[in-house]
Amino acid sequence: MAFLPQEIIRAKRDGGRLSDADIEQFVKGLTDGSVGDGQAAAFAMATFFKGMDIDERVALTRAMSQSGSTMQWDRADLHGPLVDKHSTGGVGDKTSLVLAPVAAAGGLLVPMISGRGLGHTGGTLDKLEAIPGFNVNLPVSEFRRILGACGCCMIGQTAEIAPADRKIYALRDVTATVESPYLICASIMSKKLAEGINGLVLDVKTGSGAFMKDEKDAMFLAELMVETGERMGKSMVALITDMDQPLGRYVGNALEVVEVLEVLRGEGSDDLRELCLELSAWMFQLGGKTQTIEAGKMLAKELIGSGKALDKFREMVKLQGGDLDTIDHPEKLPRPKHSLEVLSTKAGFVSAIECEAVGTACVVLGGGREKKEDSVDPGVGIVLHKKVGDAIRADESICTVHYNADALGERAKDMLLRSYHIADAPPVERRPLVHRVIRGSGAK
Amino acid sequence: MAFLPQEIIRAKRDGGRLSDADIEQFVKGLTDGSVGDGQAAAFAMATFFKGMDIDERVALTRAMSQSGSTMQWDRADLHGPLVDKHSTGGVGDKTSLVLAPVAAAGGLLVPMISGRGLGHTGGTLDKLEAIPGFNVNLPVSEFRRILGACGCCMIGQTAEIAPADRKIYALRDVTATVESPYLICASIMSKKLAEGINGLVLDVKTGSGAFMKDEKDAMFLAELMVETGERMGKSMVALITDMDQPLGRYVGNALEVVEVLEVLRGEGSDDLRELCLELSAWMFQLGGKTQTIEAGKMLAKELIGSGKALDKFREMVKLQGGDLDTIDHPEKLPRPKHSLEVLSTKAGFVSAIECEAVGTACVVLGGGREKKEDSVDPGVGIVLHKKVGDAIRADESICTVHYNADALGERAKDMLLRSYHIADAPPVERRPLVHRVIRGSGAK
Repeated sequence: MAFLPQEIIRAKRDGGRLSDADIEQFVKGLTDGSVGDGQAAAFAMATFFKGMDIDERVALTRAMSQSGSTMQWDRADLHGPLVDKHSTGGVGDKTSLVLAPVAAAGGLLVPMISGRGLGHTGGTLDKLEAIPGFNVNLPVSEFRRILGACGCCMIGQTAEIAPADRKIYALRDVTATVESPYLICASIMSKKLAEGINGLVLDVKTGSGAFMKDEKDAMFLAELMVETGERMGKSMVALITDMDQPLGRYVGNALEVVEVLEVLRGEGSDDLRELCLELSAWMFQLGGKTQTIEAGKMLAKELIGSGKALDKFREMVKLQGGDLDTIDHPEKLPRPKHSLEVLSTKAGFVSAIECEAVGTACVVLGGGREKKEDSVDPGVGIVLHKKVGDAIRADESICTVHYNADALGERAKDMLLRSYHIADAPPVERRPLVHRVIRGSGAK
Repeated sequence: MAFLPQEIIRAKRDGGRLSDADIEQFVKGLTDGSVGDGQAAAFAMATFFKGMDIDERVALTRAMSQSGSTMQWDRADLHGPLVDKHSTGGVGDKTSLVLAPVAAAGGLLVPMISGRGLGHTGGTLDKLEAIPGFNVNLPVSEFRRILGACGCCMIGQTAEIAPADRKIYALRDVTATVESPYLICASIMSKKLAEGINGLVLDVKTGSGAFMKDEKDAMFLAELMVETGERMGKSMVALITDMDQPLGRYVGNALEVVEVLEVLRGEGSDDLRELCLELSAWMFQLGGKTQTIEAGKMLAKELIGSGKALDKFREMVKLQGGDLDTIDHPEKLPRPKHSLEVLSTKAGFVSAIECEAVGTACVVLGGGREKKEDSVDPGVGIVLHKKVGDAIRADESICTVHYNADALGERAKDMLLRSYHIADAPPVERRPLVHRVIRGSGAK
């Protein structure tokens, strides 16, 4: 009896459990094209409604991961545990650019495959490409060479890596199946597993700027991913972190590189620096470098304080073809022609920031993508002078908009003004930076 | 704001009600190709789970119907109410070939667009094509000419008719969304509405050989269709009829034409003849020709008894290019090389027939299709000598298999033997031929 994709879709539609063989055949069909777009979309929608248990998630993750090249690192020339971090994305989230060099400076190997921005959320690859010459499109052989040379390397998902995921991911966007936590889990984990890592720190965002606005949804996804990764032999931890306002003070690709350099110099915004220390500590913990989170944070602080982390960043930038002059002189990074101030219309305290609107304002400026095909203007963006809880005077600047086209600058200004809520008193409760930690059994 | 198909899919996925404009835009996109296969399939799956209310069904039916040519009959040259019949399909269901000439002989106009067999169910077009020369692929202009000349014409769905339905129908088959009653309703009704009819009799089958095996499912679908048709201004009635054993005694394309000719000569199996009279009566009732079902059955009997119905069938066959010699001498219809008898292994009474298995045995012989692309052998098939309740002796023939390839004949024989259940006593209850009648308000 020939394999019939519709029978697998029907079984999932009716709430059945798919076998490993069912899932392997379906993913094989996706990869070789014998399963069509309609079948892939129907499968995704049936999964949206009916979910997947742990065995199904593991089988789907493994099959998608193995649909292309998976990296087998030879320990003879690579010394150190392989640990990565993945974030579900937000506004101003530039932690990857800090974490990779910090972790590598501390003796971990970080083979990081990242994504581009879409909608209101930014993407690590776009930020890296704001550094003139920085090449994120490397073949696996070069990825490996750089990883061996400096301990970290940051590239995009190539056609070789998890092609079945690429196919279903592209469809999910246009078929209203993006939101399925089961499919998100398999998509993220399949790419991360293809990296051949030992441990993974997940940064699952929650709040008005996050994909998962509700903390319960964020926790559910985090638990799915931790459980799936553990079952596949990886050390796992997920941090549910706050994305109810932008992370740090800079939003926009080149601007975010500036802030990364600030943090690597021991400066930068408190929230960004603190989250980078926390995530670094978990990477060290999973990699067996430190025994407690406090010790991990101390190690990260030392690596930053001694300049070793910045040196590592410079080394990676150089190996990936980036212009080091812009790292030493951030004012040489791409800058737009104009800037304007967004002035508060009243005095008071910032009670909330509609975080997604800030990300969308950056897209409006040209700093992000509405559609996958859009190109990105690296220089534009927003520098926030006020964050939640800050006092503000009437006519004081909320933020500075860096733009190239006047009409877009004005549109972004209006959006930003509306996105800031000013109240007479500061908010009573402050949202914590790290809401929860969800540990796998390997992350003690 | 540009139309985004994924927002319409998302709204349906989340249980929302789609507006007429949403549905029109989606169907327009299906027709012009801007809505892709993945989006069509995701929409179908979301509809499978969330259903459609009466307004949505009407909008979807209308939009699919108007995606191509719809027939506007000019009453100046066409005299009589336009009434059609549609069956959800079964095994041995050849009523259309009897009803069209009977209804036309009684003064109705029957512009019938039919389908092909798929899986265990046969198709009217395949049966008609068993008559050498009979052409079911006529342009609308020719359809109209023949309808005007003889009162009935039977063709297939051309590219002009409901192209949006053709697209989504082809996808449903491979995406496990065939079973959605909402989509079945829109698919059937869109094609029937394109015929420009005034009234429609639905024959919704239930039982082991039907698409809807459970009577509740059959009733649900019947109610959806009656309500939808009524809201679109058509006179509607649905009969829930029995398909727990094959209808009549002949299964296979040319064999079924033989049985149609028997009925048109006033002979043939009781169940087939009775159902044809019942359905004809409802067609006359909806067309205003008779006031009661009994009167309609009397009229149908008269038209058969007088030979007028058979004359009408001969007229249609001639106009559609069919060889009249085979009608007058049915033994000249396609016949396979061989036949064999399936003998009962024990004495008793036929307590049940697995009706789907009988249909599948005919497919195995080459008389039906496993895949849409398969061609059909018109001559092969099965003549049943025993039906439910009949007494049988050991070694008496259950049925005769007409076949061309020995291996297939043997395989069909084994399937048929297994599909007959023989018990010591006849079944206590006999299933009625017509289980229920679901009337629209216009079908008094």
